[in-house]
Amino acid sequence: MATVEASSHTPTPLLKDELDIVIPTIRNLDFLEMWRPFFEPYHLIIVQDGDPSKTIKVPDGFDYELYNRNDINRILGPKASCISFKDSACRCFGYMVSKKKYIFTIDDDCFVAKDPSGKLINALEQHIKNLLSPSTPHFFNTLYDPFRDGADFVRGYPFTLREGVKTAVSHGLWLNIPDYDAPTQLVKPRERNTRYVDAVLTIPKGTLFPMCGMNLAFDRELIGPAMYFGLMGDGQPIGRYDDMWAGWCIKVICDHLGLGVKTGLPYIWHSKASNPFVNLRKEYKGIFWQEEIIPFFQSAVLPKDCTSVQKCYLELSNQVKEKLSQVDPYFDKLADAMVTWIEAWNELNPDGASAKLPNGNA
Amino acid sequence: MATVEASSHTPTPLLKDELDIVIPTIRNLDFLEMWRPFFEPYHLIIVQDGDPSKTIKVPDGFDYELYNRNDINRILGPKASCISFKDSACRCFGYMVSKKKYIFTIDDDCFVAKDPSGKLINALEQHIKNLLSPSTPHFFNTLYDPFRDGADFVRGYPFTLREGVKTAVSHGLWLNIPDYDAPTQLVKPRERNTRYVDAVLTIPKGTLFPMCGMNLAFDRELIGPAMYFGLMGDGQPIGRYDDMWAGWCIKVICDHLGLGVKTGLPYIWHSKASNPFVNLRKEYKGIFWQEEIIPFFQSAVLPKDCTSVQKCYLELSNQVKEKLSQVDPYFDKLADAMVTWIEAWNELNPDGASAKLPNGNA
Repeated sequence: MATVEASSHTPTPLLKDELDIVIPTIRNLDFLEMWRPFFEPYHLIIVQDGDPSKTIKVPDGFDYELYNRNDINRILGPKASCISFKDSACRCFGYMVSKKKYIFTIDDDCFVAKDPSGKLINALEQHIKNLLSPSTPHFFNTLYDPFRDGADFVRGYPFTLREGVKTAVSHGLWLNIPDYDAPTQLVKPRERNTRYVDAVLTIPKGTLFPMCGMNLAFDRELIGPAMYFGLMGDGQPIGRYDDMWAGWCIKVICDHLGLGVKTGLPYIWHSKASNPFVNLRKEYKGIFWQEEIIPFFQSAVLPKDCTSVQKCYLELSNQVKEKLSQVDPYFDKLADAMVTWIEAWNELNPDGASAKLPNGNA
Repeated sequence: MATVEASSHTPTPLLKDELDIVIPTIRNLDFLEMWRPFFEPYHLIIVQDGDPSKTIKVPDGFDYELYNRNDINRILGPKASCISFKDSACRCFGYMVSKKKYIFTIDDDCFVAKDPSGKLINALEQHIKNLLSPSTPHFFNTLYDPFRDGADFVRGYPFTLREGVKTAVSHGLWLNIPDYDAPTQLVKPRERNTRYVDAVLTIPKGTLFPMCGMNLAFDRELIGPAMYFGLMGDGQPIGRYDDMWAGWCIKVICDHLGLGVKTGLPYIWHSKASNPFVNLRKEYKGIFWQEEIIPFFQSAVLPKDCTSVQKCYLELSNQVKEKLSQVDPYFDKLADAMVTWIEAWNELNPDGASAKLPNGNA
């Protein structure tokens, strides 16, 4: 059951004027050379982390805007406190200043992967396919994404559920260096992901997943205000949970609003493992905290009158304050930052991107 | 994170004395020739459907027992009414008479598939790997089965959930002819499944799936008494929902008892599409009914004192009688047959296979 958008018989719309690529970085963006054929048609939003006096070189020919810490402080004023410093969590500033419908975000140590036939993978095109075709969170389809060419809903799939729901998030994967935590990195220093799994699937309603920010696309109008990467890095007791935090929040909100989250294709080539000792220091508290955070999100219920992403997110911040600040005072601060983030988002997006009520909640 | 059982460093135990292969059929079992290298070490339970006076030829060298309708009637007496006639749903009689811990069931139009490298797939070996390694129903792992070689839990996966739960069911897939319903067959007569997805994944807790009986393995001690394929075929208003019914029941019960259900590898080669017009006649009522059956199972709650599969199943039969017989009187009859099935199971399995309390419910 191929939708018009996702069929190989019709080319995938490239959404050139509707998608921004957001890249957090502390270095020159040489990695873009390999992505040139795929990224050059798009506008880039580069969020420079760390020392703002440093100059980031961007290869010629790319259309971009670059924000460093000074820019963030200038644009957001006191509300800049919600944007992390010295941590790639700062990328979410790019989501906020974008004016486009779709965002693709990628790390600067991610390169173009090859499929099993040796063909270079256009990750962005696959993300667009994922976002433009519906999700199926209410029932599992054993042949994976029923909207791909050559696939469909299998026998026993209820017909009333086959329309699916709008897709808000497309989570891509990584060949070579897998996204492991520090303990796993330490235990398995040589493990590489060589398995190309040719599948896209909807993460079922009610199920949480570990969302990695390395290779991620989303519909900013549908879910943007919930894509906050939290308080990490400089001055914070934790790191490497920025994307996880966003993933738990967006999943609870997508489930509530009747939106879909897909994972699987596309793969990128993740070139370099980060230092497991540095990572352990960043993750240390998170390893304990996540044992309480996960049950919190698994049991989080949003009231019916939360009909927009912003309302959902503010309600979630209340619940974080109420329930997680017992785990650590950090969550009290984080809950406040979640509110600041929404205030800043609304300020920069006054015509209310994502105030539109998603599918099924009009 | 490879378990001892599933690692490539240790051979997969073949469980020769612990597994029966159950095959429902109406014809000579020539298809076994292709499976000979894989199936010959095992005991086969052949459930002959239709005219019992017909002789089914089994290729030389296989160790088997064969039951026809006369045998079923003789062994079960009046309780034989719960076993379908003129429908492959009769296969569940084989689950009942088996004395082994594991069951693999396969249709006689399924042949050995090849992986993308051209190697013949030992489906049974993969099912055993799936059953012997834990499942992870409480949180989604984006790199799929974390217990496969070369894979693990990704960053952000809570450590307390990494032990997983026992796997009760392994649902394999099909290359070539996909398992489509009659309407899809009619609309897409030429669609073939050519996509080999190199993945095994746990179906998350709380999520239902369409379980196909073509290529299926399970742990009889853990879930056997719930693997009832219902009343189909001769004298019944419906067909082709036998495995679906079992799939909905086993999933609700596995979720309740803390057991896992996996889907994905292994593939078999499904050779021949059944007649879509015949199928439409069989499925017709099911197409309507499933729209009410799915919400019923999605909202089914089993009370805490249901601590064995039998107790769960009898409770489910009560709920079917109470809620689904409003949909059609057929469900009243089906609910009674569910009780008969458990009575017959207990009679043939007096030492209470699966009376053992599963993991986490001792």
